[in-house]
Amino acid sequence: MNERLKTLTTWLNDENVDVAFINSKENVYYLSNFYTDPHERLMGIFVFKQSEPLFVLPAMEVNQLKREGWKHEIVGYSDHENPWELIRTIIESRKLDFVNTVTLEKEILSYGRSEALLNLFPDAKVISVEDKLNEMRVVKNESEIEVIKRATEMADYGVQVGVEALTEGITEMEVLAKIEFELKKKGIREMSFSTMVLFGEKSGDPHGNPGDRKLKAGDMVLFDLGVVLDGYCSDITRTVAFKSITEEQREIYDTVLKAQMASLEASKPGTRIGDLDIAARDVITEAGYGEYFPHRIGHGMGINVHEFPSMSHLNDGTLKEGMVYTIEPGIYLPDVGGVRIEDDVLITKDGYETLTKFPKELQIID
Amino acid sequence: MNERLKTLTTWLNDENVDVAFINSKENVYYLSNFYTDPHERLMGIFVFKQSEPLFVLPAMEVNQLKREGWKHEIVGYSDHENPWELIRTIIESRKLDFVNTVTLEKEILSYGRSEALLNLFPDAKVISVEDKLNEMRVVKNESEIEVIKRATEMADYGVQVGVEALTEGITEMEVLAKIEFELKKKGIREMSFSTMVLFGEKSGDPHGNPGDRKLKAGDMVLFDLGVVLDGYCSDITRTVAFKSITEEQREIYDTVLKAQMASLEASKPGTRIGDLDIAARDVITEAGYGEYFPHRIGHGMGINVHEFPSMSHLNDGTLKEGMVYTIEPGIYLPDVGGVRIEDDVLITKDGYETLTKFPKELQIID
Repeated sequence: MNERLKTLTTWLNDENVDVAFINSKENVYYLSNFYTDPHERLMGIFVFKQSEPLFVLPAMEVNQLKREGWKHEIVGYSDHENPWELIRTIIESRKLDFVNTVTLEKEILSYGRSEALLNLFPDAKVISVEDKLNEMRVVKNESEIEVIKRATEMADYGVQVGVEALTEGITEMEVLAKIEFELKKKGIREMSFSTMVLFGEKSGDPHGNPGDRKLKAGDMVLFDLGVVLDGYCSDITRTVAFKSITEEQREIYDTVLKAQMASLEASKPGTRIGDLDIAARDVITEAGYGEYFPHRIGHGMGINVHEFPSMSHLNDGTLKEGMVYTIEPGIYLPDVGGVRIEDDVLITKDGYETLTKFPKELQIID
Repeated sequence: MNERLKTLTTWLNDENVDVAFINSKENVYYLSNFYTDPHERLMGIFVFKQSEPLFVLPAMEVNQLKREGWKHEIVGYSDHENPWELIRTIIESRKLDFVNTVTLEKEILSYGRSEALLNLFPDAKVISVEDKLNEMRVVKNESEIEVIKRATEMADYGVQVGVEALTEGITEMEVLAKIEFELKKKGIREMSFSTMVLFGEKSGDPHGNPGDRKLKAGDMVLFDLGVVLDGYCSDITRTVAFKSITEEQREIYDTVLKAQMASLEASKPGTRIGDLDIAARDVITEAGYGEYFPHRIGHGMGINVHEFPSMSHLNDGTLKEGMVYTIEPGIYLPDVGGVRIEDDVLITKDGYETLTKFPKELQIID
């Protein structure tokens, strides 16, 4: 068994849980290194307290799973077969059908599939496996960090393309299209979320969407984007001024940057996670803009663009070496414009490394 | 109540089901004309046998819901509130808590949310609402057809951009990027699925993915793409030859086109749906390529790019005016290449209309 499956099996034994069923493509990837989207077809991993794991997936994907290194039993089913009946046969042959407790992804597994699963294990108590998997995924290993670093380089490149595209009269959607076009040419097939390019007053709306707004002198321009690369995400925000900047815009830019630096400087192993939000929020509140910073300071990032830890002021957990998260304070002034500056951050042995490298000093684009 | 909510309420009365809970963004849109993706936050519609509908969603989206014309009660909750407790209060005040049967989207609702829902209605029997909603959505009205037609025009345009981009040595990903770039400039924010551009032998693999393969003379080039526009999808496939074509490639092209025409010509109200697959499959089998056509002839299309009806040879349903679906036969010869031709089709009063208009006669691009 790989280390991750071993960790999960140990937890099942510690908690006296008989079987786990994991079927989100993200957690299946995390546990098996096999990434696929089976759409409506069933795919998942059974992990047992006292028996080897079992992978169920469409027959046409079995060879790919083996190439990714899966060494345990596999149920490959055709479209005319009922996979749950095939699973039942194996479970009965392994004498694993006396189950007191089953753990599953409560937020992911559909009600319909839970009926089929619990039909295999009647009367079993159901608990969530998500907290355990979130806890495992929150600290990244070296190979995960290497992939994330490549994803953040592509995010930097996306912002660079966007900044270079800025010219009087261009629309938000045209700039967005150029960014994604250049990233596709570098082999990026998927963005980690809908790319944001917002001009002027639209940057002042945290729920704004890119559209036909044309760029004009005096606009703040906000880019928020990220890519998916080899199954891992990146996420960067930069804000620049176009042609000119008012004193008010410069003040909010300087305040957000100062807040971001305060939060970064607090980033090291042992820091209470919630204190990062507080460090940035204090700077913004002291400058008089507290009410215009309506969201948490950031979020963990990895296979999902939003994952644990939640970087809210309420989080009493502590930072550990290998955690990766965003730090993204913002100030949004209705009708004036908004500024957000976001980096992806890795906790190192003694401190932190910012993985996104695009410059943060205020740029006035000509 | 709008017509769709009335239809669902009538069904609840006919089937003696006390309450429906619908929370997929597609079905919520269908029932309310309100389209949003609340991500991990709860959103959904309760429809009762004998009480007015109730919409639950994040408080910040309430105004938008009202602008879309929702006239019934709304539960808007803040992030610090438990929406299920707010729902409980309303249900108790309306004396709706004695429920024998609840219907929900079994394939969509998560196990965790089903626990919260069934906590409101202990001991209720659970049935699926999906068959009923699929049946309602399968026939499109005039305004839906108008939107789908605009989406298919954009799909045609995407193929045109792709064909015009073909030049010796260009890669699949470069062509794909140009297509999506030009569509974004037309305001398209989302493709209806991952765009396919496949060259040469790669077009012969129905599971191929676009990559660095460079275009060369003699390649068949397969495009499969669609857009999302105002909540509705389109989906087109065209195959062209680059510079030259072999007799074998020409034969499979002609066979696929003949098969597609046979299936189209069978399209009219009253035809058994499965017969469309059989009409195309007969042509391909007679030409000796039956084993190289491994998928059904098509799928229904609307708010989802794949929806009902399933256009498989097993489908005993009959075509009705207002149905919209794809007809997409293909022949995939390993190492030689593949051909697929796909149109979006609308059933009219007396026959059919092909909504995708890009030419289908064999084109050899120079």
